[in-house]
Amino acid sequence: MIITFLSDFGTEDGYVGSVKGVLLKHAPKATIVDITHNIPPFNIKRAAYALLNYYDSFPAGTVHLTVVDPGVGSARKGIILKTKNYYFVGPDNGLFTLIQNYETETAYEINRKVINPDIRSTTFHARDLFAPAAAMLANGTSPERIGIPLKGLRKQVQVFFKREGNALRLKIIAIDHFGNIITGLSKEQLKSWKKSIKSVTFKNFKTERINRFYAQKKAGEPLVLWNSLNFLEIALCEGSAAKFFNVNEKKDEVKVVITDKQ
Amino acid sequence: MIITFLSDFGTEDGYVGSVKGVLLKHAPKATIVDITHNIPPFNIKRAAYALLNYYDSFPAGTVHLTVVDPGVGSARKGIILKTKNYYFVGPDNGLFTLIQNYETETAYEINRKVINPDIRSTTFHARDLFAPAAAMLANGTSPERIGIPLKGLRKQVQVFFKREGNALRLKIIAIDHFGNIITGLSKEQLKSWKKSIKSVTFKNFKTERINRFYAQKKAGEPLVLWNSLNFLEIALCEGSAAKFFNVNEKKDEVKVVITDKQ
Amino acid sequence: MIITFLSDFGTEDGYVGSVKGVLLKHAPKATIVDITHNIPPFNIKRAAYALLNYYDSFPAGTVHLTVVDPGVGSARKGIILKTKNYYFVGPDNGLFTLIQNYETETAYEINRKVINPDIRSTTFHARDLFAPAAAMLANGTSPERIGIPLKGLRKQVQVFFKREGNALRLKIIAIDHFGNIITGLSKEQLKSWKKSIKSVTFKNFKTERINRFYAQKKAGEPLVLWNSLNFLEIALCEGSAAKFFNVNEKKDEVKVVITDKQ
Repeated sequence: MIITFLSDFGTEDGYVGSVKGVLLKHAPKATIVDITHNIPPFNIKRAAYALLNYYDSFPAGTVHLTVVDPGVGSARKGIILKTKNYYFVGPDNGLFTLIQNYETETAYEINRKVINPDIRSTTFHARDLFAPAAAMLANGTSPERIGIPLKGLRKQVQVFFKREGNALRLKIIAIDHFGNIITGLSKEQLKSWKKSIKSVTFKNFKTERINRFYAQKKAGEPLVLWNSLNFLEIALCEGSAAKFFNVNEKKDEVKVVITDKQ
Repeated sequence: MIITFLSDFGTEDGYVGSVKGVLLKHAPKATIVDITHNIPPFNIKRAAYALLNYYDSFPAGTVHLTVVDPGVGSARKGIILKTKNYYFVGPDNGLFTLIQNYETETAYEINRKVINPDIRSTTFHARDLFAPAAAMLANGTSPERIGIPLKGLRKQVQVFFKREGNALRLKIIAIDHFGNIITGLSKEQLKSWKKSIKSVTFKNFKTERINRFYAQKKAGEPLVLWNSLNFLEIALCEGSAAKFFNVNEKKDEVKVVITDKQ
Repeated sequence: MIITFLSDFGTEDGYVGSVKGVLLKHAPKATIVDITHNIPPFNIKRAAYALLNYYDSFPAGTVHLTVVDPGVGSARKGIILKTKNYYFVGPDNGLFTLIQNYETETAYEINRKVINPDIRSTTFHARDLFAPAAAMLANGTSPERIGIPLKGLRKQVQVFFKREGNALRLKIIAIDHFGNIITGLSKEQLKSWKKSIKSVTFKNFKTERINRFYAQKKAGEPLVLWNSLNFLEIALCEGSAAKFFNVNEKKDEVKVVITDKQ
């Protein structure tokens, strides 16, 4: 069975290693797959978007251990989500918001006493609580035996865009490694409105063309495309759009005018 | 069998890959677990602390390959440590100092002729010497067949703190990825003295309270706690204490006043 | 079967994870080995050098998935190289240039229709095209069933050095994680000319000595050695030669005078 592991623990310390050790101690036959441990510290939104990128490329039965956890030790719950094909294990702080838009889930609050009665530390639930829970799930233990059914997960209010008639103002949900600027507008959303894009404006760049791939432009030129997750993205051919536009991830918005689908 | 691998090789090159290839060539059934390859170059102290974080979370029988090796090619020995549950393989330069405080070990000097008579390079012992040795151990070869018993490993003089009566001056042993400032005082040490903490002072911050977790403070506020390894740590709620205090890792000290245990 | 994976995708996103998911979905028994995902974005030369470091340390039969792909979505081909012991999968943009100097290969253009008739995205061939192809190879599918035989791979013109009589001017092919400056002169090349080195000059540093390992110098001193791949390298004992010499990777050259072999 596969356990994926995403965190913001970085890779200059032994933290990631200690979690992987616990996983293998409890589930010796599991395959552990590192996703990343370089999510910017405490950036739940970024982790939620990353999770959306990879979760459904894995085989059915995969357990997704996902830990970005600024509230560790506080009253925030540790949870298990069970969807049709996957388990998700992590803190209940909004990490699973985007998943919940795509997947119907049953949620459980992890019962600390079942997992780890003599929990070692109040600051390292990834090692002491979430990893043992993930390993038990990978071993085939049912979530009913690990946790208590939950109603109402915290859904962070994620404002992805504002719409006034045919005018949209899109929030930036992530700047990726290449400096691509990923907005909160998905192709599915547009389809549900039966609209298409008339124009996209970002700072002093305006275009009516949605490109299909980066190399349709010359090196250093900006473009707009639907990215590999079908979110609208501002990019630069062979360069960083974030640098080119000197982006402020929290404040800047992308303006879009939509029109009736042709 | 599991082989963990920690190094300071970074991840912009093929070095880590070539070591993993050698491990899998010699021990095709082993599970290779990356710990980290981003230990700051040549920082033996940091690697020693990281090792302490993860080594005993792994199942018994695990081989820990640990390479931070500024003296590669010189007369420093290549060694195997055998403890009750684990093997450690790496250079004899102090990497295993902290482990030696917790584990009783038998040490062996790796016999280069047994491992790799036509060793390819004098600068890449991780690939040409340590990886084959680790793979042999994972395959069940006894260390007696690989090396020569050793007496007296080099223990780097690690001054973790200075004590004068009830006044302690703690050295900083690591700044972790989150900017937490980890000192050289362990809970076990305090217990052995039958003392408790009266106050902690770091620069202009003084407190008599040891918190249990980060979220007990508001974002941006400093706090003191026993971290997940039970070392005393200066932290910041949802932020970097290292930045907040503008820390000098080598020079700054944390002052602690201790008192009789209540 | 082993699949190695190198890319420039970085590790702050879910991209790497989604490719690994696809690999495991199509080849559940494969062992996935991360090489690195921190190749500087779009730096094909650096990836080509990294590949040379690790490819032949892996067991025969290994599939090397290698994706640095600025031209994704354009007309550049997706290819499979079959050599005596390995498969290579990635874009045809010069990534495999250095390998081709050492290995005789048969090349195939990946047939998109065989792999993935309803390819999801024009910008993420690693996930939608290369990963399924690599997984099929790992499963034992012959490359003839996946692709069309190709003649004439693009070999990027890689000028590694210029020679005028006994004077060489060496290009820098990589600055590695430690700041070592790796030049384009290999020991094999020198041997083929039946020459040896008389002197090496880099900026204001001149030496007639080729060291065998770093610790032959004092900390902070520059030296020259044949590195672990037998390329000539300018290094600094326990420090970064790149910083010491304030290197310009694209412009600076190393001057070497050669002489008849003694």
